[in-house]
Formats: sequence, structure tokens, C-alpha cells
Amino acid sequence: MKNLLVAQSGGPSSVINSSLAGLVIDALKSEKVDKVYGAFHGVEGIFKENFLLFNDVPMDEIRYMKTTPSSALGSCRYKLKDYDVNKDEYDKIMEVFKKYDIGLFFYIGGNDSMDTVNKLSKLVVEKGLDVTVVGIPKTIDNDLNVIDHTPGFGSCAKYINWSIAEMYRDAICYDKKQITLVEVMGRNAGWLAASACVATEYSGAPDLIYLPEINFDMDKFKSDIDKVFAKSKKCFIVISEGIHYADGKYVGESEAQAHDGFGHAKLGGTATLLKAKLEEIHPDAKIQAIELSILQRSAQHCASLIDTEEAFDLGRKGLQYALDGKTGMMSCLIRKSSLPYEIEYTCVPVSEVANFEKVVPPEYINAEENGITRAGFEYFLPLIQGQVEVNKLDGMPRHTKIKPGYNPKA
Amino acid sequence: MKNLLVAQSGGPSSVINSSLAGLVIDALKSEKVDKVYGAFHGVEGIFKENFLLFNDVPMDEIRYMKTTPSSALGSCRYKLKDYDVNKDEYDKIMEVFKKYDIGLFFYIGGNDSMDTVNKLSKLVVEKGLDVTVVGIPKTIDNDLNVIDHTPGFGSCAKYINWSIAEMYRDAICYDKKQITLVEVMGRNAGWLAASACVATEYSGAPDLIYLPEINFDMDKFKSDIDKVFAKSKKCFIVISEGIHYADGKYVGESEAQAHDGFGHAKLGGTATLLKAKLEEIHPDAKIQAIELSILQRSAQHCASLIDTEEAFDLGRKGLQYALDGKTGMMSCLIRKSSLPYEIEYTCVPVSEVANFEKVVPPEYINAEENGITRAGFEYFLPLIQGQVEVNKLDGMPRHTKIKPGYNPKA
Repeated sequence: MKNLLVAQSGGPSSVINSSLAGLVIDALKSEKVDKVYGAFHGVEGIFKENFLLFNDVPMDEIRYMKTTPSSALGSCRYKLKDYDVNKDEYDKIMEVFKKYDIGLFFYIGGNDSMDTVNKLSKLVVEKGLDVTVVGIPKTIDNDLNVIDHTPGFGSCAKYINWSIAEMYRDAICYDKKQITLVEVMGRNAGWLAASACVATEYSGAPDLIYLPEINFDMDKFKSDIDKVFAKSKKCFIVISEGIHYADGKYVGESEAQAHDGFGHAKLGGTATLLKAKLEEIHPDAKIQAIELSILQRSAQHCASLIDTEEAFDLGRKGLQYALDGKTGMMSCLIRKSSLPYEIEYTCVPVSEVANFEKVVPPEYINAEENGITRAGFEYFLPLIQGQVEVNKLDGMPRHTKIKPGYNPKA
Repeated sequence: MKNLLVAQSGGPSSVINSSLAGLVIDALKSEKVDKVYGAFHGVEGIFKENFLLFNDVPMDEIRYMKTTPSSALGSCRYKLKDYDVNKDEYDKIMEVFKKYDIGLFFYIGGNDSMDTVNKLSKLVVEKGLDVTVVGIPKTIDNDLNVIDHTPGFGSCAKYINWSIAEMYRDAICYDKKQITLVEVMGRNAGWLAASACVATEYSGAPDLIYLPEINFDMDKFKSDIDKVFAKSKKCFIVISEGIHYADGKYVGESEAQAHDGFGHAKLGGTATLLKAKLEEIHPDAKIQAIELSILQRSAQHCASLIDTEEAFDLGRKGLQYALDGKTGMMSCLIRKSSLPYEIEYTCVPVSEVANFEKVVPPEYINAEENGITRAGFEYFLPLIQGQVEVNKLDGMPRHTKIKPGYNPKA
């Protein structure tokens, strides 16, 4: 019998708790696992020994995690430095592992978390500890290497696509020239913006999609809009927050400086700044900038069923890999086919995943560099499928009571 | 047999098409109605004789309207002036009524639309035309007089409440001081912001709610936040877009001027401007401003079932009232009880509704003027109930093909 410790890290998603639920439910059932600890706020909770003992938690609250957005255990933005640089932190973690007799450690997160998994899995071997360290992938950004797509991405993409289909109906209801700018997350990888090609197929919008993978060119942007207006009164545009000029400057940043030198323009996001620019060029048009902000990563009510179930299963499989002694690995999924959609679970060395950002490949980007190809569409479509049944109380979502600081005995 | 003409006006909602569907489906079935016309873009479509003949439209597309957000016929922002001022417009409408042999006219909309209904219902009598004119209420703002609540409000309120419950989970996931500002629609009436008291009850947020009904005081606002921080690291705030100082200046406007004299601050909304202000006072806090923008009035995927069915029924009842010869009336609902929720349909003279904005009553606002009373909570709770089954195609919403310019014979 081993004790287990799990923590969550990085930006939350609609399904990071699904993975936690899958892992914890199976761990509590397993005859090979004794105590199941969760650390509040990622590695910070390990340093502080700030733990939740899941064995004490009512099973309903654990099950409700499956449909509760964000990180039930809380998260952190903390990347462990190298062992040589910050020996104390690693020693503290090893000490905590010993003190709580941890034999299984799981970290649910993105790139940085997989780096942590990688470092810790090597260190426990060096230190002669018997701890199996496994990573469970998570990120709405879909920028992890090796894995076909990351849990959290499909739900975020579904919300974006549904919201665009709905907002497009709003955009066309007045008989006037109109530009709608929707800004979605994605600093370096434009997966979420690219996924909006599904809405184009089924609703007619967006007309144009701009990704950080392509250097932004303001003149081309204006000319792209003119081409849309040549055919229609409405121009619907999706941009990644991370679009940037050829010199690397973010469009948001550069525009801010173009307006004034006092940083006031930081008040708005990239879409808001582009709106101001377009208002000068198209004074006759109604221009709207909509930032999907944290709504897109929190909107569990619009989660993809595929995504939720895969996240759950990646948690369960992660436990299985760990119990099989596969340390330094990440629970992973590989796509066998898009039509029909078919995947296979496996595990891969976390070293192949850590510290690498997967971006949208050229074959998914159209020749005009303002839209997505059929190959891209076929990649995205399966990931947004299915509706999740949300637990409700009096018509409101009944989320789990588990949150940072939750004490089941209180 | 009479011919029927219907148009939609004002800002769209998730359920304005539900009312249209209810009216049109029953009209097509009725033995008393012959042709069923829809005018594209409100009265503008009447001036231009830009009509859709619903008799030619496949019944599935009419049924799909029930779960399609925004105005399927398109909308306009056009308020008819008085007859003395703009005789030509009225004469044109009368001419169109005659030309198409219209005996029943319906206008779906808010305050201004009810004013149009009022004016037209009087004029047809003066002109000796046999046209029954009936209004169908609609507005997410919930600011119509007499009616207990307006179709569109409940769905918008549900989206706001669910999104807050979800974003709150996001807001609490990091172990740091944090302020979340959510801006919702409501220029003069704070009903939507007030409805967020439901999320407070079920999710723990928002902590503070600010309405246009109460003059905004920046010092009190800061002190309210300090009181929340005295008990918690997280402060979650909902504001109406229309909050204003005692002198009537909108908080957004005034803040813009406080920052610079060049109107740059118009880049952001009120929440964004308050964020900038709070960043000066709480440099140690993470501060997020989220504007729910047109998402809140488009999010049919999160529509309230109660709202959708009531909107549908108000359309159906409207037809019935008109066929009973009740001209100059608005299809209306009255609440008999909140627990259990019970309503009654009726019709009221549109003159009692037109040109009056109903605001949140004092008994719904707490003594501290930063939250909502139990009486308010009990008013709001029934309106957000139930989940609507959305028509889907390949995992995306299947909206009606009816939109401005739609030609069923093309």
C-alpha cells in the first residue's frame, strides 16, 4: 500500500478537475493505494504541507469535481528552478515525500508542470526514494508536444465556437456595416483561434482568423477586411491574443504605443485596440470588440463531452501507469482516426513533452494566412462534440465544495 | 381571413425568436389567418416592403427559430416620431397595410416598440383601417412597465449567474489577493446586475453589486472592497454598465476624463476603467475586468427554459388577443406566486407600457446599497430555471436559416 499525492498547476480549465476526479476515484478504490492526498495550490501546497486528505471527503463531492470548472485544489504559477540553483526547494519536497510516505506523485498541468514532473522523477531516483512520478496533461492552449490534443482545449474550443455562432446572429441583425472582433486566448500558439473554423462551417462566421503563428501585417489585415466587405456588410474576425508583428511586438503593445506614451491603451485588449484602429478607417461601421477572457476557460456549462471524458480517463490511466511503475511518464492520447473519431491511450516519457510549445502546423493554415484548411477543420471538429450533464441545485450548477482550504471535517 | 404582418425591433435576445415562432406557428395553423408576412429589420422593412412570406418557409426552419438567438427577421433602432412631425412615414405604413391587406400587425420589442404599437393602433382607427395592432414584449433589460418580467431577461440572467458561478471558481484558484469586476448590460435599470444575487447564494460570488438605481460613490466603493478584503483574499464585483455618479455622469465617462483628455479611455468599458483605478490602490492584487458584452444576450445555449417557453407563449397569446380584436394591447404576464412559481397570461393597454422604464425597486436593494435583499432573490430565482434542448448538427447549434434577406424560394 502506497500513499498518493496529487496537485494541480497552471491556468485552470473546464476539465482539469475531471482528471483529478478520475484519478482520485480510482485511487480510493484501489487496494494498492492507502492515503490519497491533494496539495492545495500546486507545489506551493507541498512546501507548506497544505494538504487535503481525500479519504475523508464525501464521495459526492469527489464526483462533483468532474463537472466543476477551474482547479478544485487551487493552482499556482511556480516553475521549479534547476536542482543546482534551488536545492532547498527540492530537498523540502523530498522531505515531505518521506514524511507523508508518498509512493505515488501526480502533477496535473501544462508545459511547466511536465518540466516539474521530469525533474522530480529524476531526483527521487538519485535520492534513492521509491516514488513514482507521473504527469497528467492539461491546458486549454493545446500546445503540449506528442499528445494529439490536451484536455481542456476541446471544451474551450466548443465554447468559442458556440459563442461565435450565437454572436454572429447578433452581428447580422441590424442592416448596417459591422465589424465584430473576437479575441481568444493563445499567447504563442493559435489553436483556440484556429478552432473557430468550425463555426465558419456551421454558422458562417468568422470570415477571418489571425494566429500568432503568422506575423501580423496591418495593411494586409485592412485589405482582408475590404475583401470581405466587397461581398458582405458584415465582417467577423477572430484573433489570438498573441498576434504580433514581424519584429515580435504584440499587436496590443505596439498599438498602445501608437496611441500615446502613457500606457493607457493597456486598458483594453488586442481586439479593443484593433477596434480603435478600424474606427478610423471605417467610420461608417459599427465595430465591436469582444474578449472571451476567463469565460472561455471557465464555461463548464458548455464543456465538450469528449473532452470531459478524455480528461477523466487520462486521470484514471495515469494512476494505472504509476501503479505499473512507469515513472517520469505522462498520461497521453494518440489519435487513430478523425472520421470516425478514434483515440488510444498510452504513456510517453515526460522529457519529450516538457519545455516545448506545439504550435498550429502550416498545413492547417490557408494560403491567404487568414483562415484554416480542411485538414485543420477535420482535426478540430471531433474535439467539441457532446453535451455534459451538469449537476444542478435549484437551477444553478452544483459545483463540488472542494476548493482551496476546504476541510471535510469542518 | 386576414393577412398578418410581424416585425422585431430593438436589441436582440436569446428568446425574441421564441415569441416569433409561437406567433407564426399558430398563425399558420389558424383558419382566421391567410398570409403571414415578416418584415425584415423592423419598421424599416415595412417602409421598403422587404418581407418574408412565412407560408413559403419549411416548418422546420420556423420551429428552429424557437432556439435561435437574436432577431431572425433582423432588427432596427428606429423610433417613429409623432404623426404631426413625420406624417409621411405613417402614411407609408398605412399604404403598405392596405397594399398587402394586413388585418393583424404585431411588433415584438421593448419600450420604443410599444410606443410604435400605441401610435399605430390609434392611427389605424383614425384612418378607418381594420387592422388590429398588438405588441409582444421583449427586452433583456426587464424595464417594461406592468409586465412582471420581460422575455429575454431570464435567459440573460441565467447566463450571467452561471458564468459568475464558473468564473468564481477561476478567481479563487490562485493563492493571491484578487479583484474580479464583471460588467453586465443595463444602462438605466440594473435588473441584470441585481439578478447576480442568485450566484451569491449558490456559489459565493459576487460579494458586491452596483446598480444605476444608486448613485455611485468612489470612496464608498473602495471602502466596500476593503471590508470584503478584511474577511477574504477575493473580492468579486458585478456592476451595471450604467452606474453613474450623483451628478449623472457615467462612471465610464468620468473615469475616461480623469485619465486623459483625449477620449482614449473609451477603449475600455466601465469595468476596465474601474480596474485601472483599483490597480493604483491595490498594486498587490490581481485585478480582472470582464465585460459580458453581446455574449449575455446571445447565449441561447444557456437560455432559461422558463423564459423560452414564456416567450413562445406570449407570442401565441398575442395572436389570440389580436384575433379577439384586442387592439392597442400588449401580451403580458403577471406573477401569482414565486414559491411555487406561478404566472398568468393577460393583455394590457400598450399605453400603460410605452415610454416608461421600470427600475429595480428600493425593497430589492440592501441597506448598504451594494447588494440585493431576500425579496429580490425570490423574484429572480424562478426566472433562470430549466435547460433548453438545442437543435444540433455535428455538435454545433443548428439555428434557423431564417435571417435578414432569407428567401425560402432561392
